[in-house]
Amino acid sequence: MSETDLIEAMAVEAKEAARQMRRAGRSQKDEALRLMGEKIREGEAFIREENQKDVVLARESDLSSAFVDRLTLDSKTIQSMVDGLKEVEALPDPVGEVTQMWKRPNGLIVGRMRIPLGVIGFIYESRPNVTVEASSLCLKSGNTVILKGGSEAIHSNRVLGRLLKEALVEADLPEKAIQVVPTTGREALKILLGLEEHVDLIIPRGGEGLIRFVTEHSRIPVLRHYKGVCHVYVDEFADVAMASEICFNAKVQRPGVCNAMETMLVHERIAPAFLPAMAARYKAAGVELRGCPRTLALIPGAKEAQPSDWPAEYLELILAVKIVSTMDEALDHIERYGSNHTESIITSDYSRAQRFLSEVDSSVVLVNASTRFNDGNQLGLGAEIGISTSKLHAFGPMGLEELTTKKFIVYGSGQVRT
Amino acid sequence: MSETDLIEAMAVEAKEAARQMRRAGRSQKDEALRLMGEKIREGEAFIREENQKDVVLARESDLSSAFVDRLTLDSKTIQSMVDGLKEVEALPDPVGEVTQMWKRPNGLIVGRMRIPLGVIGFIYESRPNVTVEASSLCLKSGNTVILKGGSEAIHSNRVLGRLLKEALVEADLPEKAIQVVPTTGREALKILLGLEEHVDLIIPRGGEGLIRFVTEHSRIPVLRHYKGVCHVYVDEFADVAMASEICFNAKVQRPGVCNAMETMLVHERIAPAFLPAMAARYKAAGVELRGCPRTLALIPGAKEAQPSDWPAEYLELILAVKIVSTMDEALDHIERYGSNHTESIITSDYSRAQRFLSEVDSSVVLVNASTRFNDGNQLGLGAEIGISTSKLHAFGPMGLEELTTKKFIVYGSGQVRT
Repeated sequence: MSETDLIEAMAVEAKEAARQMRRAGRSQKDEALRLMGEKIREGEAFIREENQKDVVLARESDLSSAFVDRLTLDSKTIQSMVDGLKEVEALPDPVGEVTQMWKRPNGLIVGRMRIPLGVIGFIYESRPNVTVEASSLCLKSGNTVILKGGSEAIHSNRVLGRLLKEALVEADLPEKAIQVVPTTGREALKILLGLEEHVDLIIPRGGEGLIRFVTEHSRIPVLRHYKGVCHVYVDEFADVAMASEICFNAKVQRPGVCNAMETMLVHERIAPAFLPAMAARYKAAGVELRGCPRTLALIPGAKEAQPSDWPAEYLELILAVKIVSTMDEALDHIERYGSNHTESIITSDYSRAQRFLSEVDSSVVLVNASTRFNDGNQLGLGAEIGISTSKLHAFGPMGLEELTTKKFIVYGSGQVRT
Repeated sequence: MSETDLIEAMAVEAKEAARQMRRAGRSQKDEALRLMGEKIREGEAFIREENQKDVVLARESDLSSAFVDRLTLDSKTIQSMVDGLKEVEALPDPVGEVTQMWKRPNGLIVGRMRIPLGVIGFIYESRPNVTVEASSLCLKSGNTVILKGGSEAIHSNRVLGRLLKEALVEADLPEKAIQVVPTTGREALKILLGLEEHVDLIIPRGGEGLIRFVTEHSRIPVLRHYKGVCHVYVDEFADVAMASEICFNAKVQRPGVCNAMETMLVHERIAPAFLPAMAARYKAAGVELRGCPRTLALIPGAKEAQPSDWPAEYLELILAVKIVSTMDEALDHIERYGSNHTESIITSDYSRAQRFLSEVDSSVVLVNASTRFNDGNQLGLGAEIGISTSKLHAFGPMGLEELTTKKFIVYGSGQVRT
């Protein structure tokens, strides 16, 4: 069978399986999740054996040690896969929920019922634990999934896919509900992205290069986020100690992720009291500051920010700093350079807090809290399959609900239209 | 200025205007809607003069009388535009609604707030009343809109666009919130569909040809519906009189629309009591029946259905009829040939009604009511900008809420992530 035929056949089977998955009740899905955890725990030795093949090849290909780290499955990562399955098992089932119901003047009772989306194509890089995580979320939300992971993880993904399939069969769910694309490379990916008749949604997770490739080649709707150029605005009426804690956390706690702060905006009236001490704290943590001219006047050691710094997503210990004369200037800056991802205001002024929340056009807008809270788990969605920075269908962290849609159900008693 | 530059400039201005529109309150938007109605009423003579230019050209081009009818603005259609504006004015403003709010263990208070999508490209055929209808819905939901109507309505659309703009300015809203593309033809449309940096959503309304063209050429997400192959399933336990009323209404009341029934599925146990009388009623109304072999045995006059009849969207007084042995056979038929648009079951059996509602994968699923109720007004959404038969973002009739998305708002008190 050609690669095209193979992948198309997978998609057709995924769509057939989706009909059964739509009807699957919570207990059956939870049983499958429980069995998956069991099989992964029991299969640990075998999983690690297969994973070692990937790891050896990756080392031979001189891939970076960070890459090999993400690829490697040890006892700890395997345990965290099992724990993740338990957490998803404990989440409520979104399918079948009727979110609203109302009665029309003619007596029709109209409701909106949550249903699965159908077939999801999940595209990711060489992190085999994502295979299990994405599968569990798609399964719990009643969807079927076709997984296309990075080619460097193919042995790991194949064995994980096999174990997940065994669990599905034992739980009497269709084995084609979770399928790992067995071939590697971008050609296979392109084929998958063209199957708009069978696949309802594509979710890519990975670097900007992968996401741009997917977006450009997909004929299927894509939920994605490009980058997080997140801002904290330290208002004139901020509590200086609180601002310091939050700005430190937002930049330093985990700089390599999308919800880390990249630009700090500081009101001119608070800058003298706030910036020098903050700069010293950043310096001690190894953060490089790149400031506007007014910032440099307060922090002599800082580099001068270039125009390319304002839209930059550093993902490392670098921070752009700008002093603004008004809150409006901060809002204008965010509007111009932000990526609609996450912004936070630090203020004790009620009306400024409310204004920031309502006017900033980002997926998560916070008052007096770190940008690092833009995360499905942290916000209470229970789990996260990704973050969307475009507004259609989902905006911000996507949990189980975002893997569903709603249909209208109508209870009548003979009504016809006049 | 080239056509490309012109349309791109419109999109840039629409995006700038979107920032102001996000902040506009209900009273300001309602004032603009009120002024629009006033200006259209006062400008009636001028509107009709401009519209006559389009009508004369359409007649000269030998366009069908149905086409000329839809194009023509008389006192009655102008009055109904004004009435439509009043109805939208009376609808609640979806923007700013916080649909949920919860508290996290660390004290963060998390809510989801409705916000506008941004810039909407609305593509339609030569029905100038749609210019006003789409504008009013986009305005009320805080979006800006670029309108690309059929070239045959260009004089009408230009004058309507001018009046709408006057109302915006008087209400102190940005005049670029509603813009009519002043040039005609598919080249202009293609340019608009490529502006993914400035336009957030494309909504096409029109025939299948237009919708396919838009989908194929758009780099922007498209909300659309292709076709409505709607089914009524008359169950073994149906009330025969009710089934007759509903099946008659679903086929005959307005056969040319997407929510009219195209295939009737009849359980074998009720077929002898139901079908012959129903067929006589259809015959009197001029409906042509195309039946499966078992149907033909009961209705000797009917034509034999061909394989092409089961997936057909007739949009006229033709009905495909199939006798099924079980409810499962009806569900399988709908799964195979339906278009996920609208299906209805007629039954007095409780568990069959519930099963149909939960298993049928269509945007509107009804029990004991006509398929003709798949309509935003009829279901109580207040207004409708279109019907989506794909599941992403919206599934079924789209009202004001479907022109919004939700962002997360977070009230903190100094929380950082550990």
